[in-house]
Amino acid sequence: MTHDHKGNTLKLKWLGIDTYRENIIFMRSDCDICISEGFTALTRLLISHKGKTIVATLDVVHSDLIAHGQAALSEIAFKRLDAFEGDEITVTHLDPIVSLSDVRAKIYGKKLDDSAFYRIISDINKGYYSDIELSAFISACAGDNLDLDEITGLTKAMVNTGSKLNWNTDKVLDKHCIGGLPGNRTTPIVVSIIAAAGLTIPKTSSRAITSPAGTADTMETITNVNLTIDKLKEVVQKEGGCIAWGGIVNLSPSDDILISVEKALDIDSEGQMIASVLSKKAAAGSTHVVIDMPVGKTAKVRTEKDALKLQYYFTAVGKSLGLNIEVLITDGSQPVGRGIGPSLEAMDIIAVLKNEKDAPKDLKEKAEIIAGAMFELCEASKQGEGVLLAKQILESGKAWDKFHNICLAQGGFMTPVHAQYKMDILASNSGVVKEIDNRRLAKVAKLAGAPKTPSSGIYFCAPIGTKVSENQVLYTVYSEAEGELNYALEYINSSNPIIIIE
Amino acid sequence: MTHDHKGNTLKLKWLGIDTYRENIIFMRSDCDICISEGFTALTRLLISHKGKTIVATLDVVHSDLIAHGQAALSEIAFKRLDAFEGDEITVTHLDPIVSLSDVRAKIYGKKLDDSAFYRIISDINKGYYSDIELSAFISACAGDNLDLDEITGLTKAMVNTGSKLNWNTDKVLDKHCIGGLPGNRTTPIVVSIIAAAGLTIPKTSSRAITSPAGTADTMETITNVNLTIDKLKEVVQKEGGCIAWGGIVNLSPSDDILISVEKALDIDSEGQMIASVLSKKAAAGSTHVVIDMPVGKTAKVRTEKDALKLQYYFTAVGKSLGLNIEVLITDGSQPVGRGIGPSLEAMDIIAVLKNEKDAPKDLKEKAEIIAGAMFELCEASKQGEGVLLAKQILESGKAWDKFHNICLAQGGFMTPVHAQYKMDILASNSGVVKEIDNRRLAKVAKLAGAPKTPSSGIYFCAPIGTKVSENQVLYTVYSEAEGELNYALEYINSSNPIIIIE
Repeated sequence: MTHDHKGNTLKLKWLGIDTYRENIIFMRSDCDICISEGFTALTRLLISHKGKTIVATLDVVHSDLIAHGQAALSEIAFKRLDAFEGDEITVTHLDPIVSLSDVRAKIYGKKLDDSAFYRIISDINKGYYSDIELSAFISACAGDNLDLDEITGLTKAMVNTGSKLNWNTDKVLDKHCIGGLPGNRTTPIVVSIIAAAGLTIPKTSSRAITSPAGTADTMETITNVNLTIDKLKEVVQKEGGCIAWGGIVNLSPSDDILISVEKALDIDSEGQMIASVLSKKAAAGSTHVVIDMPVGKTAKVRTEKDALKLQYYFTAVGKSLGLNIEVLITDGSQPVGRGIGPSLEAMDIIAVLKNEKDAPKDLKEKAEIIAGAMFELCEASKQGEGVLLAKQILESGKAWDKFHNICLAQGGFMTPVHAQYKMDILASNSGVVKEIDNRRLAKVAKLAGAPKTPSSGIYFCAPIGTKVSENQVLYTVYSEAEGELNYALEYINSSNPIIIIE
Repeated sequence: MTHDHKGNTLKLKWLGIDTYRENIIFMRSDCDICISEGFTALTRLLISHKGKTIVATLDVVHSDLIAHGQAALSEIAFKRLDAFEGDEITVTHLDPIVSLSDVRAKIYGKKLDDSAFYRIISDINKGYYSDIELSAFISACAGDNLDLDEITGLTKAMVNTGSKLNWNTDKVLDKHCIGGLPGNRTTPIVVSIIAAAGLTIPKTSSRAITSPAGTADTMETITNVNLTIDKLKEVVQKEGGCIAWGGIVNLSPSDDILISVEKALDIDSEGQMIASVLSKKAAAGSTHVVIDMPVGKTAKVRTEKDALKLQYYFTAVGKSLGLNIEVLITDGSQPVGRGIGPSLEAMDIIAVLKNEKDAPKDLKEKAEIIAGAMFELCEASKQGEGVLLAKQILESGKAWDKFHNICLAQGGFMTPVHAQYKMDILASNSGVVKEIDNRRLAKVAKLAGAPKTPSSGIYFCAPIGTKVSENQVLYTVYSEAEGELNYALEYINSSNPIIIIE
């Protein structure tokens, strides 16, 4: 007696229901398949269509929304199956997911080996995990729950389950910022300087996890960042560098899935962060990587001690993957640049690259320091001369030319714009800016709509040390929806000042 | 400038979409409210209707499934709001959930105090947590991650956020089994014995977490277990005892929410288990509680060491709640009784209570031991004479009369029935039954449909020590769907034998 999957076909109906990332199948409660197979709401099912297979959660429909012999899918499930209304799908039981026992072992505090991580990440890649299961895995790995071996195992699993790029050179550069600092959008400037120097830098960036913008979000307001692997190779071969969204090139596909759940939980797990960063670097074919790690009371890394531990982990895990890593511990006490949110940050970047008079100096200097460290790490300059080389390239206008050409090669150049609604936030007293709560400032930008609506965010004009008079503008909040502007304002007024003036 | 929630009303349309436990609101992507408030798919929203409020996740609809000015809800959301098609609802932003920072603190390994647990459990009760957030909380508390103080804090929070019952007596008895052993449905027998002795035992039970049946599932095949608090009091006042589902009387409302996610993850967390059990006992007004803890290689508690630790935790947490707890460590090497699954277990119970000749002896003896310990714990009998008293009451027929009367008081008496499809599983060789894998046996019953379809499950007839010949029936699998029967069979054939014969 075998389990006959053949008969379970249904015709698709389009309902237009967008569940974001979640695969849902809608089936009638009195559907023959539901009854004969014993399917009920929340059952996880295997759906096949012309050689493609996904796992979806069943929502049972008690109305005549779908007819007998029909089923509907959420928008993302239609897309993943490459299916359209009228197509036939096959619906079967999902075999038990073996790697979930590895997740349970981790929840119970056991140490996982390389093969366990490989099983888990492979299944996540295939879309076999529900949001509940992803959340359990992330929570079990958060905090201090992964040791060095486990972080290495997780990183290797992420590399080995994705695509890998190869470049015909022994110096492939890359950079990464640990984040947590609003603004701080050095990447596009650094890539332009490095590529202008004739070096190779196939940069992929992520979208925001818990911040108001990721580099991919910011660059998307200027050019296309959704490059296929072929397109990415073409851009890098032509210009030496690119600034692409990492998710779409599928270098570490599980990472974007994990990040979307981390975002919903608003947590950043140390081990997952290291694995996320280094797996993408290894998969991109990088050999020399500089990591910018801002440290400050309200940055992502809060203490020198945490920074040193992360520095050690990054270097050690990098080594076992064959990467040369340098971690720069930088100032994390306040935003870098003036814009916070995709479009506003893009405006800063363009101003720096164009050597405009009022371009944010702090952003320019930080980009030069990072590019300089990269020159030295790969021995493209002597020790101590990296920053000077970066400065020369930037100020000569070569970096701007390179940036503009990279954008054109990626698909075109757009000028970022301001949002429709804005509101100035004023100083309640005069004095000197003493301290800034980066987290709460970032939260304001998020409540205003960043990065979802790219033009929303904050224009910040009160760095530490600024002398301000009463009612002077500290920052301006931008939003495309009045509701969100009000919501951000409610938050600003709900507790202690975000910018402390003494 | 304030945040005006007034304007956001929409008229409800019924779509009949059953998402099980999850509140979903369906809104048009071009809906004015979505645009002005900046709502996108997966946004969590506050939905109000005539004084009731729930939190729902937004699914955006791109089709004409719902008209302008309309919204739809999942079935459970309609029910929780007490709303119908055509009713008007108000939709607003959800303020940030403060207790989620407590959950994050726990994920990061921090110790939580009583007030943190109170905040978390209150919000879970209100339905503010998404499945992702519930999963993170459960995972963070699983394993050994809660210490004694934290388990006590969690338990108190569960008690203080639910209803509490009061009985006019200083002896209110209760029992609980840690589970993991298929069959083992002693509760209905024990309650009948205790109540027949004139003592008070307002027993509430849960539904299955990861097993093929909970006591509530089993009793539901005989009588109504969905008692309101008023009805429960009426039954206990009349009969001295009841056997009700704990979820519906709202004694520890957060517990059923947590259990549904634990079930999806297939994990049982130690701290959450203790909190779950004791919060229900305290809320039910119990004073004397006997806990049956089967220990065995494939039971929930696997070693003597684990059992002693749990025994200590139960007793200590119980003490701080003012409960007298006795933990009986029992044999967990094999199923108790013959039925596994709601209806099949119910048949065993009735046979024991009716003193039928072929009633399972092991189930009868175990019920007597537990009832005996309860008599001694509350000093209703002398030490060493409890079991004898229990035996006398059971064999006199008084326990059966009491059981029948309790069922009638709860709403009627039904006779449980067998499922439509069945299949005998035969011994592949002759010999003596040496060992039984309880977990995999339970899994077979679950794959066959238990407890979802109550009549499905296993009739087990090969306890340890049984002499069997080749092709003798070891157990029979029952199911209401051929698909499930096949699925169970596939699992049985997929690996090592579940019953070892030597």
